[in-house]
Amino acid sequence: MQQLFSSLDTIYDEIVDIRRHLHKHPELSFEEVETPKFIADFHNDLGHEVKTGVGGNGVVAYLKGGLDGPTVALRADFDALPIQEDTGLPFQSVNEGVMHACGHDGHTATLLGVAKVLNRMKGELKGNVVFIHQHAEELPPGGAKAMIEDGCLDGVDVIFGTHLQAQTPFREINYRTDALQAAADKFEITIKGKGGHGAMPQDTKDSILIASQLVDNLQQIVSRRVNPLDSAVLSVCNFEAAGPYNVIANSAKLSGTVRTLKEDVREHMDREIRRVVEGTCHLSDADFEYEYKKGYPVLVNHKEETEFVRDVAKTVPGVNEVKEIDPIMGGEDYAYYLQEVKGTYFFTGAQPDGVEDPFPHHHPKFDINEESLLIAAKILAKSTVEYMENN
Amino acid sequence: MQQLFSSLDTIYDEIVDIRRHLHKHPELSFEEVETPKFIADFHNDLGHEVKTGVGGNGVVAYLKGGLDGPTVALRADFDALPIQEDTGLPFQSVNEGVMHACGHDGHTATLLGVAKVLNRMKGELKGNVVFIHQHAEELPPGGAKAMIEDGCLDGVDVIFGTHLQAQTPFREINYRTDALQAAADKFEITIKGKGGHGAMPQDTKDSILIASQLVDNLQQIVSRRVNPLDSAVLSVCNFEAAGPYNVIANSAKLSGTVRTLKEDVREHMDREIRRVVEGTCHLSDADFEYEYKKGYPVLVNHKEETEFVRDVAKTVPGVNEVKEIDPIMGGEDYAYYLQEVKGTYFFTGAQPDGVEDPFPHHHPKFDINEESLLIAAKILAKSTVEYMENN
Amino acid sequence: MQQLFSSLDTIYDEIVDIRRHLHKHPELSFEEVETPKFIADFHNDLGHEVKTGVGGNGVVAYLKGGLDGPTVALRADFDALPIQEDTGLPFQSVNEGVMHACGHDGHTATLLGVAKVLNRMKGELKGNVVFIHQHAEELPPGGAKAMIEDGCLDGVDVIFGTHLQAQTPFREINYRTDALQAAADKFEITIKGKGGHGAMPQDTKDSILIASQLVDNLQQIVSRRVNPLDSAVLSVCNFEAAGPYNVIANSAKLSGTVRTLKEDVREHMDREIRRVVEGTCHLSDADFEYEYKKGYPVLVNHKEETEFVRDVAKTVPGVNEVKEIDPIMGGEDYAYYLQEVKGTYFFTGAQPDGVEDPFPHHHPKFDINEESLLIAAKILAKSTVEYMENN
Amino acid sequence: MQQLFSSLDTIYDEIVDIRRHLHKHPELSFEEVETPKFIADFHNDLGHEVKTGVGGNGVVAYLKGGLDGPTVALRADFDALPIQEDTGLPFQSVNEGVMHACGHDGHTATLLGVAKVLNRMKGELKGNVVFIHQHAEELPPGGAKAMIEDGCLDGVDVIFGTHLQAQTPFREINYRTDALQAAADKFEITIKGKGGHGAMPQDTKDSILIASQLVDNLQQIVSRRVNPLDSAVLSVCNFEAAGPYNVIANSAKLSGTVRTLKEDVREHMDREIRRVVEGTCHLSDADFEYEYKKGYPVLVNHKEETEFVRDVAKTVPGVNEVKEIDPIMGGEDYAYYLQEVKGTYFFTGAQPDGVEDPFPHHHPKFDINEESLLIAAKILAKSTVEYMENN
Repeated sequence: MQQLFSSLDTIYDEIVDIRRHLHKHPELSFEEVETPKFIADFHNDLGHEVKTGVGGNGVVAYLKGGLDGPTVALRADFDALPIQEDTGLPFQSVNEGVMHACGHDGHTATLLGVAKVLNRMKGELKGNVVFIHQHAEELPPGGAKAMIEDGCLDGVDVIFGTHLQAQTPFREINYRTDALQAAADKFEITIKGKGGHGAMPQDTKDSILIASQLVDNLQQIVSRRVNPLDSAVLSVCNFEAAGPYNVIANSAKLSGTVRTLKEDVREHMDREIRRVVEGTCHLSDADFEYEYKKGYPVLVNHKEETEFVRDVAKTVPGVNEVKEIDPIMGGEDYAYYLQEVKGTYFFTGAQPDGVEDPFPHHHPKFDINEESLLIAAKILAKSTVEYMENN
Repeated sequence: MQQLFSSLDTIYDEIVDIRRHLHKHPELSFEEVETPKFIADFHNDLGHEVKTGVGGNGVVAYLKGGLDGPTVALRADFDALPIQEDTGLPFQSVNEGVMHACGHDGHTATLLGVAKVLNRMKGELKGNVVFIHQHAEELPPGGAKAMIEDGCLDGVDVIFGTHLQAQTPFREINYRTDALQAAADKFEITIKGKGGHGAMPQDTKDSILIASQLVDNLQQIVSRRVNPLDSAVLSVCNFEAAGPYNVIANSAKLSGTVRTLKEDVREHMDREIRRVVEGTCHLSDADFEYEYKKGYPVLVNHKEETEFVRDVAKTVPGVNEVKEIDPIMGGEDYAYYLQEVKGTYFFTGAQPDGVEDPFPHHHPKFDINEESLLIAAKILAKSTVEYMENN
Repeated sequence: MQQLFSSLDTIYDEIVDIRRHLHKHPELSFEEVETPKFIADFHNDLGHEVKTGVGGNGVVAYLKGGLDGPTVALRADFDALPIQEDTGLPFQSVNEGVMHACGHDGHTATLLGVAKVLNRMKGELKGNVVFIHQHAEELPPGGAKAMIEDGCLDGVDVIFGTHLQAQTPFREINYRTDALQAAADKFEITIKGKGGHGAMPQDTKDSILIASQLVDNLQQIVSRRVNPLDSAVLSVCNFEAAGPYNVIANSAKLSGTVRTLKEDVREHMDREIRRVVEGTCHLSDADFEYEYKKGYPVLVNHKEETEFVRDVAKTVPGVNEVKEIDPIMGGEDYAYYLQEVKGTYFFTGAQPDGVEDPFPHHHPKFDINEESLLIAAKILAKSTVEYMENN
Repeated sequence: MQQLFSSLDTIYDEIVDIRRHLHKHPELSFEEVETPKFIADFHNDLGHEVKTGVGGNGVVAYLKGGLDGPTVALRADFDALPIQEDTGLPFQSVNEGVMHACGHDGHTATLLGVAKVLNRMKGELKGNVVFIHQHAEELPPGGAKAMIEDGCLDGVDVIFGTHLQAQTPFREINYRTDALQAAADKFEITIKGKGGHGAMPQDTKDSILIASQLVDNLQQIVSRRVNPLDSAVLSVCNFEAAGPYNVIANSAKLSGTVRTLKEDVREHMDREIRRVVEGTCHLSDADFEYEYKKGYPVLVNHKEETEFVRDVAKTVPGVNEVKEIDPIMGGEDYAYYLQEVKGTYFFTGAQPDGVEDPFPHHHPKFDINEESLLIAAKILAKSTVEYMENN
């Protein structure tokens, strides 16, 4: 593997250039045009078979190894965010109000680097590689689901992917067997009472009171109806019932978020919210509308593949620490790939050098440590090659 | 009327004797035997037509006046309470654990006195009198309803009655046009959840939580669903869910009382409690039993008849003050008579002489001022005669 | 009194002209300029002593009777509302967005008519009359309080006043001994929690939950802490906590109205709301701001004076029915006069002829029956004269 | 180790005899007399130094190995439960109302067997063994804490122990790095309101309503104030406020259980319950008493030692499966040992042969598979010897 690592060292500058190019020209989710073109050109130049427009704006490239063996997919997302960049970097975004503020530029540059070095050794590769360049990760319903439906996982045996984390120390790798990222869903409830004069409550159905009792009643779902060993969050974050101080409100709107780490708990939350809404409205003889809008599913890593990549990561030069972490409550549509094939998703520490308190993802001053791309590339490349040798 | 009043003055000692005799020999509701016999004998001696066993243990006596005119009913109740008397009076109860602690002995003696003087002047009476001696006022369903069903109000045009009040100043009369006494009802609710281990709420339906939310949810009936100009009380007074500290309760029982001053508000309370129980249980997927047990209805005085008696009272010697009072929240089955015929019910102040802080009704040391019987008798007698003259 | 009545009949056309003139030129509360000038001119023409600028824009005129006797005050308010008139009447408002939509034009015309006829008979008047023309009734803090502080009640023995009611049948007079109109107050509460990520409630103090529990907890004030024989309303009508569906709110604002019919109940409400806010915030470790803004006090009519005017009303030609009504829950700053001197306030039915379902007060199509001005004038004039004769 | 295992095989019958003897003569927690005597005699016969009366009724025996090395403690508890046995076994309890219904007889027999075989090889032992025979595990405050204070862990480097589990398949071993058993605490709350007449809530502080709101308010501690990745249960299991249906309760008592898997979460629960009680009572102006009674702490296994025993277990003949499990919510005072020294606690499957649905622990028909004692003994013995060799 030393050869693989030094190949990557050699093209590190090129990886950085790619990243900076992409950073300068970010494109919003579902509106990606130049980025997929750039990616497709790169793979074409390497002689890979390339499919574009996969499931929308996705690009899939195929590298056939010289020897028989399993097919390994590697995934990088390439869309950017509707944020006005404020980093002052020389390669700052030239697209007004659009910014790579989540590291997808780094993901893509990493994967192209990996493609280049694996291509160089294709004769000795004991299997095939599928490079999945995914659009629209930031915006549900996301690009993953459509790309899968469009065949991007056909023939794939295993999938690996990583996310650069600006707030995780550089040279640290985080993994988790089992659930790594939560299902992040949204619910919307409208209480339809009956408005009226503030001095005559008996002629009304007081929507603000009903909605208030609902917010309170919803608490018991987490406190009583979910296994205490499971995790679930239900937050009502929005309560819309503004009106004159002396007119009882005709209706009230609530919306909020639900986070879960198991699919059955997630289904349970939807059912229980509905039940609580029904009962709370019934007791005040009010009507309602209720909608549960699913975001991405729980991202559940496969145990064996996760331990495999963990062990690979431990051998990669530059990696100081490999540790298991608690789940995080944000969503990621990589979850869909893991519902179809085995694999894992891990985090690559990318805290900028000398920055003690790095800006969070999705911040106008968000930045990453570019050397983390090299580490990510080495883990992905070695995992690919070693997986082929072992399976 | 002076003759009427002096007639009563003359027999005052006899009235007191009757009261003391009855006081010494009290009988429980629905178990009255000697008392109705005593009453019937008294009326028989006067030559009145007498019906016994009316609606149970009730006695009804009829005085036919010499001249044509309306039929006036006068009502007195005669049952006692399951209380061990502790007054030390010379005529203290000889029946263990039974006591006239609410003044019904006085009501009956008053009415018999009135019967005697009206009988004396029967030739000049411009109408007829029906003396309704009612059993079982203290214990719902009471005696009034059954006596009415048994015909005690047949041919009656108007009804008058009074209650001696030990805590109202002697020589004061209290009346109220409209509702004088509340409907006093009872409700019972059983929450049927699903018990289980205190550490595994997800496998249970937590009856204590459901019942607690119910107690809270019931508040909004009075605060939101009753006209603020009407009166209603809903009190949950009993919460039974005692158990080990670490086992979630299988069920919980609530009971309480509802007081209202209008029949439609009363019906509304029953309906709304049911609605709140249904919704509260639904939201936790629990079952329930609910029962609303009606006590006596609202006692609603008729305006014209009340003002008539008020004006009579103002003329009666010995009466110092006649004033309108707020409703009281306790029940009285005299209410049933007023649902059938016009009439009124008023309170006669009976605070014992020289007692600043009299014992309340239903107390083992309860006592009344015996002179209040004479005042009550004069008001009832004059109201009867004057009503006949005016109608 | 026949002379008084026929005097008024004679000037009826003039009263109507005045009313229409005022209707055409309405002025907003606290911004009255032409209206008080018109009123002052009218009284000056009658030779009355006139004070202007009383307590702001108020006008007070004095009629000294030929004989000694009590001083009777009569009050009419003269401000208009910020409403764009849509009646299509020939004398429709010419002031954009301002309208006499509550009948104050009628009140003023009525009072000027009364002034004219009383002036004619001043030689025989057994007392004095104070005409209180009040500005700014519609907008708390109102004009009454300032006019009183400026001396408008000096030397006054009794005060009478009326409100024309478009939704009460023409020829009907409504009175009420005791409380006629409620204290109408406003409260504002800000819950100051701690915002944060919707998936991390443990790092926040959830303002929406706290405010919701507060709305629920406030219910028990009316249901448990107010005498069921008293009236109180507490309505939360405004709940402001709109935000993104996945961010826990930093703060939430509530506002609402409190209506009461007794001053002590009103004070009690303020204290109890504060207590509930304190406890509810304490249990979630949150801060708050709370303000109770008093509107006008309870308007409590004096018994004797009310019965006096009631009896006068029964004798006035054109009056069909005089009846006692339940209190109404809206406020009126006439309440302040009745805190200082004896008197009463009554309602004069003013339903337009042939209109079955009249538009409510404060509606762009609000209208009154102009003949009701004559009835109101006769009651006020006769009450004044008769009061002087009796006292 | 083969020798060790065959030594145990050889004395299996003796182990079973011991277990049956103990089973027949169970003793309640803190009342153990014969059991510790039996244990002490056994160790004395082996020539071990023995301390009795340790921390109460505990027995500690010391085996000094022939070679230098670490000191390994092995713990077995020996108290029984206040349950009337109903198994019908030939060695059924002869002590009325007392039963080894949790397998402590098996724990003790296992440990004595281990003592015997380790004693046989003491010359070659590279360290020392401390046999901790603990009384009173079933009844907080338990025996462990007092035995530790009395020195039972002095000089100990590591501790191992196991619990036989009747509902876990025979031949299965369960372990868990990190928290295995919850802290199980109790709380008691008394709401001190003010009782009164059910029809006059305004003169009372309604304890049932306050307690009900408290039960509801406590829900938000788990739903909002605990990290969703942590586990916590708060169950109110007892609500005492039984009384007449028409008298508002003077006070109400609540009690319940709290289960947590981290000490800081446990402390947090106590603080937050107090805060919610304070606020809820404040809002109704009521007093309260609140007590949080700690049970056993969280049992937290040490990672390295747990993985060590896990690996040992995998090599023991008769063991079919070794698997990591979720925490269980019941408490165990073995937790105290692990707060002092490194070590682990694991579960040994003991489901009786041919029984599909075994009776749970603490059931009158509870039974175990006696062969599980042999498996437990082999794991403990081999862990002891191998630990000495490695450390």
